[in-house]
Amino acid sequence: MEFQTKRIVIVGASAAGLRCACRLQRLQPDWSITVVEAKEVFSYGACGLPYVLSGDIDELAALRRTVYGVDRDADYFAAVKGVEVLAPWRATAVDTQAGTLHIEGPEGERELEWDELVIATGASPRRLPDLPDDPRIHTFHVWDDVKPLKIGLMHGEIDHVAVVGAGLVGCELAEAFRSLWGAEVTLIEAAPTPLPEILDPELGAVVRKHMEKNGVRVLTGSAVAEISADDEGVSVAVGSERVRADAVVAAVGVLPQVDLATAAGAALGPTRAIRVDERLATSVPHVWAAGDCVEVRHVVTGGPAYLPLGSLANRQGRVLANILAGRDDAFGPVAGATAVKVFDLNVAAVGCTAARLAGDGLGVRSAWISTEDRAHYWPEAQLILLTMVYDPSTRRVLGVQGVGEEGEVAKRIDVASQLVLRGATIDEFTRIEHPYAPPYAPAIEPLAVLAFAAENQTEGIDMMSPLTDLETTMVLDVRVPEEREERPLNAGRLIEIEVSEVRDRAGEIPEGPLVVACAHGTRSAEVVRWLAQRGTRARYLGGGVSWRVRALSPEG
Amino acid sequence: MEFQTKRIVIVGASAAGLRCACRLQRLQPDWSITVVEAKEVFSYGACGLPYVLSGDIDELAALRRTVYGVDRDADYFAAVKGVEVLAPWRATAVDTQAGTLHIEGPEGERELEWDELVIATGASPRRLPDLPDDPRIHTFHVWDDVKPLKIGLMHGEIDHVAVVGAGLVGCELAEAFRSLWGAEVTLIEAAPTPLPEILDPELGAVVRKHMEKNGVRVLTGSAVAEISADDEGVSVAVGSERVRADAVVAAVGVLPQVDLATAAGAALGPTRAIRVDERLATSVPHVWAAGDCVEVRHVVTGGPAYLPLGSLANRQGRVLANILAGRDDAFGPVAGATAVKVFDLNVAAVGCTAARLAGDGLGVRSAWISTEDRAHYWPEAQLILLTMVYDPSTRRVLGVQGVGEEGEVAKRIDVASQLVLRGATIDEFTRIEHPYAPPYAPAIEPLAVLAFAAENQTEGIDMMSPLTDLETTMVLDVRVPEEREERPLNAGRLIEIEVSEVRDRAGEIPEGPLVVACAHGTRSAEVVRWLAQRGTRARYLGGGVSWRVRALSPEG
Repeated sequence: MEFQTKRIVIVGASAAGLRCACRLQRLQPDWSITVVEAKEVFSYGACGLPYVLSGDIDELAALRRTVYGVDRDADYFAAVKGVEVLAPWRATAVDTQAGTLHIEGPEGERELEWDELVIATGASPRRLPDLPDDPRIHTFHVWDDVKPLKIGLMHGEIDHVAVVGAGLVGCELAEAFRSLWGAEVTLIEAAPTPLPEILDPELGAVVRKHMEKNGVRVLTGSAVAEISADDEGVSVAVGSERVRADAVVAAVGVLPQVDLATAAGAALGPTRAIRVDERLATSVPHVWAAGDCVEVRHVVTGGPAYLPLGSLANRQGRVLANILAGRDDAFGPVAGATAVKVFDLNVAAVGCTAARLAGDGLGVRSAWISTEDRAHYWPEAQLILLTMVYDPSTRRVLGVQGVGEEGEVAKRIDVASQLVLRGATIDEFTRIEHPYAPPYAPAIEPLAVLAFAAENQTEGIDMMSPLTDLETTMVLDVRVPEEREERPLNAGRLIEIEVSEVRDRAGEIPEGPLVVACAHGTRSAEVVRWLAQRGTRARYLGGGVSWRVRALSPEG
Repeated sequence: MEFQTKRIVIVGASAAGLRCACRLQRLQPDWSITVVEAKEVFSYGACGLPYVLSGDIDELAALRRTVYGVDRDADYFAAVKGVEVLAPWRATAVDTQAGTLHIEGPEGERELEWDELVIATGASPRRLPDLPDDPRIHTFHVWDDVKPLKIGLMHGEIDHVAVVGAGLVGCELAEAFRSLWGAEVTLIEAAPTPLPEILDPELGAVVRKHMEKNGVRVLTGSAVAEISADDEGVSVAVGSERVRADAVVAAVGVLPQVDLATAAGAALGPTRAIRVDERLATSVPHVWAAGDCVEVRHVVTGGPAYLPLGSLANRQGRVLANILAGRDDAFGPVAGATAVKVFDLNVAAVGCTAARLAGDGLGVRSAWISTEDRAHYWPEAQLILLTMVYDPSTRRVLGVQGVGEEGEVAKRIDVASQLVLRGATIDEFTRIEHPYAPPYAPAIEPLAVLAFAAENQTEGIDMMSPLTDLETTMVLDVRVPEEREERPLNAGRLIEIEVSEVRDRAGEIPEGPLVVACAHGTRSAEVVRWLAQRGTRARYLGGGVSWRVRALSPEG
């Protein structure tokens, strides 16, 4: 692109569109940059909306203010960023030959001329089919969605809420309704466990139990058959049950807003989001797209993925500004790093779940560990549970998932994200260098411990899922008596030999099949290796009893 | 190495030696593995010692226990790990031709035969020259060093402590003496600011001010001339002053323990630690070394470095076990990731400081930012201060440093460590993918924001050190009035135009040289770019006023 004065029109004033506009204005101050936005209120931290409902954040307006307390409205963008934002104006037609965009707003209609058009139209909530149009049936995606729910809660009109969908937003909403307002909450999810997009069932079960502990009723494994409304309230038919509530929130994901792109003739990808190349160009010359309306390339599958995440939208906006300004830049594959707080539970993940990859014929395997997030003698050390999904043939790590109450989980996924992005193997994870001090981390980084478990497994030190039914199994419990008393283990047949006595009492250990169990999985893995060297085939309980008591009800 | 039964003797039962012994025993259960340790108590978390003194950790014994409450003594290693530990036994002579080690212990003398010898003798405190032998003059490195100080504090015999050396241990000790015991503490450091090995002065000044806020007297920039003891107490002569105290702790770093290596004929490197190759082999066949007694290769300088860190020692122990067992493994270059808690301040760094590289002729530059560690509207969001050291010609990032009160600093260095290790550029830092949710991070990862600042600087958007003396400078303060009132800025000449008015009031802005200032550095960087496009040369205050008030006394 040569340097020349250009007219840029950007449709959509969320993260991608505004970031692109502001940076491009800085790089090319003489260009004309106009942002068209259909909504009156824009440029707010949409990821903070659930926390306004919960009361963690005092007021909606906080989401829209700069660090120094100024509202990010059209005046702000004009004065501070030199960017014109037209809001509320709707783009109603586009002519890519003429390079025009037809818009309609409070002052009538206008025709904007552009040399480059950026589509940053974002996403809208996916709607369940046949949903009645009733004010008690909500979605939760934008600024205006907060107030009706908050008023209903404040006025005592909403005592029981049914949240349909236990994805990121559904889980955040369950907490919001429950923790401040004490509402009765039923969370309904078609998949077997909550957060199925980012967590395999072993960790999903931990989230479910944590929700239940906090008073949320969780119904999983059943699709919603019908949502209906009558004078008594609203109800959700799920499985053989009908859940009655004062309000329903359908949080079943979002769909890319592609109307304008389609009107412009831009191709969609297999995810039904706008197809773009690494330069964020659509299939139509001079038409670009960024943010929640585009699909990205997933580094693990190598294929297209739809990941409407604020972090990616922001990055895309900046990259696109660079590209439009004539710089060399690209938006490469992503690993899908995600985090979410569920009551006191920190949840984060990157890459793909084993469930997601099960159909790909890779024969992926999983490793599970429980481990302290800081030096174990540090008073505030907390247990975290980590899963690694890997390809045993290439040893490549395909995904890492973690949860922990108060534990330092997100930072492990921050680190794992860097490694998954560059296709790192188990072996590279074992060599992670981390800043160690007892208040921050153990001397051996938990991600390395996780990789050791996976490495061991590739050498035949097999583990079993923490959720394995032990009722019909022979279990060798190698914990010390105090641990066994505190958290007894139920099994078909139980042999108790603490780890320090295993070598001396080897004669008491029967031939396999045998499951060895300890608190976190460390001692039992060592015992399995030792038994294998003596010809006894055994596996161990991944993540140990610590994981099991957090995932299963009743415990153990 | 072919499979055959071998006799392995390991000298030193700290992290590297024991980890090597235990893993090797698992991999080669038929080998004879003996660990020789000079001290009676071993295998404890030495990094936790300052926290026993401070009372954060209840009792010394906690450092030595497993997660499940068992003491890690010789019986434990024999029964659980199948490893023989001889302690307290001292290695007094070695014959590398015969493959023998002469040891002396409570039961007399013994000769151990080995096929492979592992030297894991660790480090010992560096001693200041001419130090009198007095019980009130301490070092702080091992188990036995805690008790005399703790008793002195408990009995009220130590009211004033002089800590010589503001490295990792010195800073931890200053906190330990001060926060629980309320002792008067004088911290003495020859370098201009605390933690000079890991922090450049811009952040070192923040640590100093934080220490002072917590009641520690910090004397920097003066070397200790003499330490003396008399009936009145002990005293430290530093600069023109004599600091009198009840106890002195010399925390001036550690030296590798190389006596045995030297006796074996193993070469030392330029750091005076044992030289090893990537397989941790010394210059003598069949003699290996790991842990705090060896030097490592630094990924930034490419040269040897002495980094006695528990995290590296643990990794080396495991790698050496793999190598001795005949596996393909290597201990590669390190980035020197480090973390330390100083009262409520979290401090972490990786790579090299600009001060360290100043003499290398690279012409390295630094970028500084203040930024929120979480979404800025999240109630618990905290400011963190970050520094990036980079090579402007290659754009390679050579170091990242951070501090923050309660802020999520360590995790940024966890991530930066992965990138510095693989020689990442500023540009790669701008593309970091992170798990974003308001409770954990801002939508744009702070490390990326830091990289943006460095990238801008390479394009002429220059910043000045947060510590710059502004007394004789013309400063354009673009903050809003409320911010200016709360934290006024002193400058030779001060022009106040809030950022939203800069475009309209451009006529009031004089020709340079001009320093633009705001709260964090973000707005002022944008103004500098805008001014440059209009022909006005200006620079901005890196990290903004937020950094300055945390680093300077009096503020601003």
